[in-house]
Amino acid sequence: MRFPEPIRTQIAVIVGVGLLGGSLALAFRKRGLFPHIVGVGRNPQRLQMAVQQKLIDEACTSVERAARQADWIFVCTPVDQIASHVARMIPYAQPGTIVTDVGSVKGPICHALARYARGDVVFVGSHPIAGSEKQGFENSYADLFDGKPCVITPLPAHDATAVDAVESLWRRLGMSVTRASPEEHDEILATTSHLPHFLASILASLVPPQWYPFTGTGFRDTTRVACGDAQLWTAIFMQNREQLLNVLQRCEHMQSEFKQTLINADAERLCQLLDQARQARTQLSTG
Amino acid sequence: MRFPEPIRTQIAVIVGVGLLGGSLALAFRKRGLFPHIVGVGRNPQRLQMAVQQKLIDEACTSVERAARQADWIFVCTPVDQIASHVARMIPYAQPGTIVTDVGSVKGPICHALARYARGDVVFVGSHPIAGSEKQGFENSYADLFDGKPCVITPLPAHDATAVDAVESLWRRLGMSVTRASPEEHDEILATTSHLPHFLASILASLVPPQWYPFTGTGFRDTTRVACGDAQLWTAIFMQNREQLLNVLQRCEHMQSEFKQTLINADAERLCQLLDQARQARTQLSTG
Repeated sequence: MRFPEPIRTQIAVIVGVGLLGGSLALAFRKRGLFPHIVGVGRNPQRLQMAVQQKLIDEACTSVERAARQADWIFVCTPVDQIASHVARMIPYAQPGTIVTDVGSVKGPICHALARYARGDVVFVGSHPIAGSEKQGFENSYADLFDGKPCVITPLPAHDATAVDAVESLWRRLGMSVTRASPEEHDEILATTSHLPHFLASILASLVPPQWYPFTGTGFRDTTRVACGDAQLWTAIFMQNREQLLNVLQRCEHMQSEFKQTLINADAERLCQLLDQARQARTQLSTG
Repeated sequence: MRFPEPIRTQIAVIVGVGLLGGSLALAFRKRGLFPHIVGVGRNPQRLQMAVQQKLIDEACTSVERAARQADWIFVCTPVDQIASHVARMIPYAQPGTIVTDVGSVKGPICHALARYARGDVVFVGSHPIAGSEKQGFENSYADLFDGKPCVITPLPAHDATAVDAVESLWRRLGMSVTRASPEEHDEILATTSHLPHFLASILASLVPPQWYPFTGTGFRDTTRVACGDAQLWTAIFMQNREQLLNVLQRCEHMQSEFKQTLINADAERLCQLLDQARQARTQLSTG
């Protein structure tokens, strides 16, 4: 099967027109990709608003109907609904259609959809690491993906042409694309994204409102992500439950190493630990 | 004793011309406070650079000599050196001099200096909650304090006129000032600042450099403070050791409550916890 690059005669179907789906539509418009964008969702009023605001060209409340006209399908629904949306759409899609997603957990999705790694219609898992604590297409913007990392998670059985096409699509939006297995992705993201969110929510819970006059930019920054939608994040944590539990254990281990220096009043060792963290984090700022 | 407001004939002495001391000097200049600013430090070359860059008018390597000419003294040295700098300077200061500081921990400092709560020269503890992960006066800017919170921590015995003068000074720099006891300050800041820094350093330590392509703005924001100087933060943690250990225990408790929902795969309860955190944190954004 030949999977073409996105060109000016193709139709993009975006399922879930929220912050990510809406930003994807705006990014496609800005870069002149896909002359026709179909938005799919459950709420016709919201979709009509997205049409009026020229995010999408056409609104559709049926995934099956949308699938029929698609050249590319982008599933941007909550992470626990992605696999079922893809599985419902693929039987209706034309041969040559490429399906991808933006889910923050890849293992459950990619393995549930492993049978679409090659064939007439191919699904390739993607995770553009771009987002915001805000929700809804009202907060969308065309440059959300620009300059950000994206992980694609093909399986060994995947059709190489389709995988290349997906990689090339994200690159066109200005993303730097890395490939990883779904398991590797989920292990790493448990540490780089899910754990930070988990700890930010815990921190935010520990500070009662009467203490807000005692908070500075440090507290604001370390807890910003805790403003994210609770249901979306519950789904992410539940889908990546085992990996998150693993990394929580690593975190607790590190925590007790740090804490022991306080118990022992061992300033020298504490300073070493803080300086190792500083050196690591500073590399990220500059590298 | 009458403690005058800062006026155009007074001399400010800033001990420790780093990010905070340098920004204080710039803020005074911008607001037309203090016609003459003396910077005190150990390194004459660094101080001369600060004079050349017009941060300070005069450089001085002796705290005693600087104390003699001061109307106001601002001690901006690392938190474990503040009390001894103040105690060394006060015997040389003219009657009517006000001394304050910018230390992130208040109990040890304010109690060590309790005998200067009233008399010819008064010390009032301050903590302007403004800073950066960057160091050095090269990173100073005049608006660092503007719009930020500041806590002053007078003791019951304090001279009210001096306390009012210190409060009024921070207000002139655009800060919103809250009063608290040193103990209350240290308990609250252990949660709102020291714990977030502690966790940020732990998070930064858990991510090896080869995982940086898998990090987004969430990781960057939650760990930004970990770039702070290790020695400065070791001193802060050590000075507030007991309160930090207390709040770490509260944090571990909350952590195991969150973790238990994962172990039980209890999505409903996890969503409740995340939503409580979201509601709390959202109040801070808007309030």
